[in-house]
Amino acid sequence: MKSKKIVVVGANAGGMTAASKLRREQPEWEIIAFERGSYTSYAACGIPYYIAGDVKSKENLIARKPEVFIEKQNIDVRIRHEVLEIDIRNKQVKVKNLDKNEEFIESWDELLIATGSSAIFPDVQGIDAKGIFELTSLKKGADAKDFIKMNNPQKAVIIGGGYIGLEMAETLLDRGMDVSLIDMASQLMNSMDQDITDSIAEYMKAEGVKLFLNEKLDHFETNKEDIIKTVVTDKQTHKADIVIVGIGVKPNTGLAVRAGIKLGENDAIHVNKKMQTSVPGVWAAGDCAESFHLVKAKQVHVPLGTVANKQSLVAGINIAGGNIEFPGVLGTAITKFRELEIARTGLSEKEAKNLDFKFIAKTIDSTTLSSYYPYTGKIKVKLVAEKNSGRILGAQIVGRQGAGKRIDTIAAAITAKMNLQNIVDMDLSYAPPFSPVWDPVQIAARAML
Amino acid sequence: MKSKKIVVVGANAGGMTAASKLRREQPEWEIIAFERGSYTSYAACGIPYYIAGDVKSKENLIARKPEVFIEKQNIDVRIRHEVLEIDIRNKQVKVKNLDKNEEFIESWDELLIATGSSAIFPDVQGIDAKGIFELTSLKKGADAKDFIKMNNPQKAVIIGGGYIGLEMAETLLDRGMDVSLIDMASQLMNSMDQDITDSIAEYMKAEGVKLFLNEKLDHFETNKEDIIKTVVTDKQTHKADIVIVGIGVKPNTGLAVRAGIKLGENDAIHVNKKMQTSVPGVWAAGDCAESFHLVKAKQVHVPLGTVANKQSLVAGINIAGGNIEFPGVLGTAITKFRELEIARTGLSEKEAKNLDFKFIAKTIDSTTLSSYYPYTGKIKVKLVAEKNSGRILGAQIVGRQGAGKRIDTIAAAITAKMNLQNIVDMDLSYAPPFSPVWDPVQIAARAML
Repeated sequence: MKSKKIVVVGANAGGMTAASKLRREQPEWEIIAFERGSYTSYAACGIPYYIAGDVKSKENLIARKPEVFIEKQNIDVRIRHEVLEIDIRNKQVKVKNLDKNEEFIESWDELLIATGSSAIFPDVQGIDAKGIFELTSLKKGADAKDFIKMNNPQKAVIIGGGYIGLEMAETLLDRGMDVSLIDMASQLMNSMDQDITDSIAEYMKAEGVKLFLNEKLDHFETNKEDIIKTVVTDKQTHKADIVIVGIGVKPNTGLAVRAGIKLGENDAIHVNKKMQTSVPGVWAAGDCAESFHLVKAKQVHVPLGTVANKQSLVAGINIAGGNIEFPGVLGTAITKFRELEIARTGLSEKEAKNLDFKFIAKTIDSTTLSSYYPYTGKIKVKLVAEKNSGRILGAQIVGRQGAGKRIDTIAAAITAKMNLQNIVDMDLSYAPPFSPVWDPVQIAARAML
Repeated sequence: MKSKKIVVVGANAGGMTAASKLRREQPEWEIIAFERGSYTSYAACGIPYYIAGDVKSKENLIARKPEVFIEKQNIDVRIRHEVLEIDIRNKQVKVKNLDKNEEFIESWDELLIATGSSAIFPDVQGIDAKGIFELTSLKKGADAKDFIKMNNPQKAVIIGGGYIGLEMAETLLDRGMDVSLIDMASQLMNSMDQDITDSIAEYMKAEGVKLFLNEKLDHFETNKEDIIKTVVTDKQTHKADIVIVGIGVKPNTGLAVRAGIKLGENDAIHVNKKMQTSVPGVWAAGDCAESFHLVKAKQVHVPLGTVANKQSLVAGINIAGGNIEFPGVLGTAITKFRELEIARTGLSEKEAKNLDFKFIAKTIDSTTLSSYYPYTGKIKVKLVAEKNSGRILGAQIVGRQGAGKRIDTIAAAITAKMNLQNIVDMDLSYAPPFSPVWDPVQIAARAML
């Protein structure tokens, strides 16, 4: 194969996973990666734990520094370089060196767009105040941590009860703040069902978080130094020394749109299972791109690190001349709030209903370990299955230590199109310090048969 | 269906699971269960933790007492009743009431043999000494606990480095004893591969267990009161105040053999997937019966509680007139020694070799959580896969908290005949407090591709 020049737009975890794979497959090709920020390959998911102090330094979140890519892998990574324009016709990008304030043109044979996603920031009065943070970049995480150190906030308000909201509620509570969490929905964790999220809410309240559901942000008020003072909702005014906004992310697709590349679900870049965009020679992977959902059997947008990594690996192999496919996602996700582990995969009951599946759903209560074992804890498992076939469509788990990762067993079962009886039949591991004789996952399946 | 009379021989977990299922399916049938011991439905796997004191009372290990079966489920359970003979031709059993020392005959339309297994006890000099215990029954566990309380043993010798050996090493070490563990093999946990068990041995030694591998028990010496004094091996003499023997179990099949019922693998009762024995109307389930191994594709004997439960449920349904099959086992098992979790499923490398599979095998080192997360620990994952297809044949895991239950994901994958690429593609859960971005299971699969 003739040597090619590859340009990667965005040198975070996704882009650099692809670039690294490409380098292993094609030792001679020229690979250039442009990153408008100052960091490469960092673990965005670790930011709440960095702010908590569990992760001591932000350096710990950086998997590999630019100089390592340059020196060890011969990948020409350029941080503080923003790609301004993708020129499809001439196979070029226009790039700005942000430090030197210079623009230049770089040509490519194949282009990978790995521009990631950004936090959705509500367009309300006061949103630009000091002390309001989102946490989609390491820079922003570090800013939030610095702000806490400098200002010693006592009263924290979190807007949004999703993954970031829960993780930051834990973090700020652990740092001794008075934490209020506001969500406009009637439940936390909107991708899960309310019978499950109600038990999360109950636990969070018992731990001291003030929850305000069915409450909508209206605007923010600031003091004279433009520092956040209050969060005003449609119901009341909350005093706030710091605000965390975690209401979701949107794919970064401005460049792709201007280049005429087709968007898809949730306005993410449309890709096929090879990670090809609508334009030949242009690929996309990570938070900016779509995925195929194995149960929904349609395109979705799942901006998670696991998906980004898998997509990027597939993109790297295919750009290098390989021919593999990324089969798709289940929307598997996990988080915790203090001692409560929370996980989901596949369809929630709500989603099954919205997608007109004929389904049955059931939630069971069991224990994480043998009921007589001293460190055992409560666990709830909810399964959603197709009505006649019994095929597993989705699952949700909340419970104490050891509960969450059980979602992987169900993710494997869904991937393999197993039904309820198959789950019951599975030879899962048992010993009193690990599980009841029937794993709670199987107890749920049995209850539905 | 005409009403039937069912006799169950053995009223422990297996027998009573079947009887309970049968009762739910057939509310009118007569069900009699004979148990020669004094307990029904107890959790034998919990005995080491009962001796350790983690489980406070032996009552906690009893899932359901005879009177509950009798009163709530109308199952005629008779403890201290030993079945002496099965008469196939006349469909009768001869039973002895052990308390009254009376024998009687009971007829049956269908018979379930659930006689369980017994510890293998080496036939050596001194084996009947006071202070030598095996732990296959609640009675024996209670005896061992009483002996410890009365005699305050300082020096413990464990014969056998399998599951019971490891669990009792933990228990006795935690109780402050000086613990030696002797095994005639060159490794612990003979169902696993030595590269994995070496790391278990290393950990156990660091925690203070004295390991003597490649060392064979010769006989025991006792004092004048016939209390254990020393364990004599082919290499040396070990002082011992208490001895635990955990060198395996054998199926209890005397009754079946005398009745002319066919035995199979490891001299367990031969059964088909419906749990029928070679004699029409006679069923068997639990530790006394065979299973089908899904990877080996042949009959095996896996005397574990999970298998016994599944078999018994299938037997109960089929005796009641149902028609389901128990597809089979993978030999999935899990245990721990202090902070080290140990799990296996499917074939070890050794087994794959012995069965002439064409295979590849690899062991990877990773972390249980994100490497930067503070409570992360080491984990080793070994995968065995078919050479050309990449189909997963087996796995072994050792590692810190959260390591062991990951075996279930692989058990699901093996059940579904997944290959290495399927494992990599799976949408498993990730967040820093739970896993690296690529779960260690996937890291192992990637390393083999």
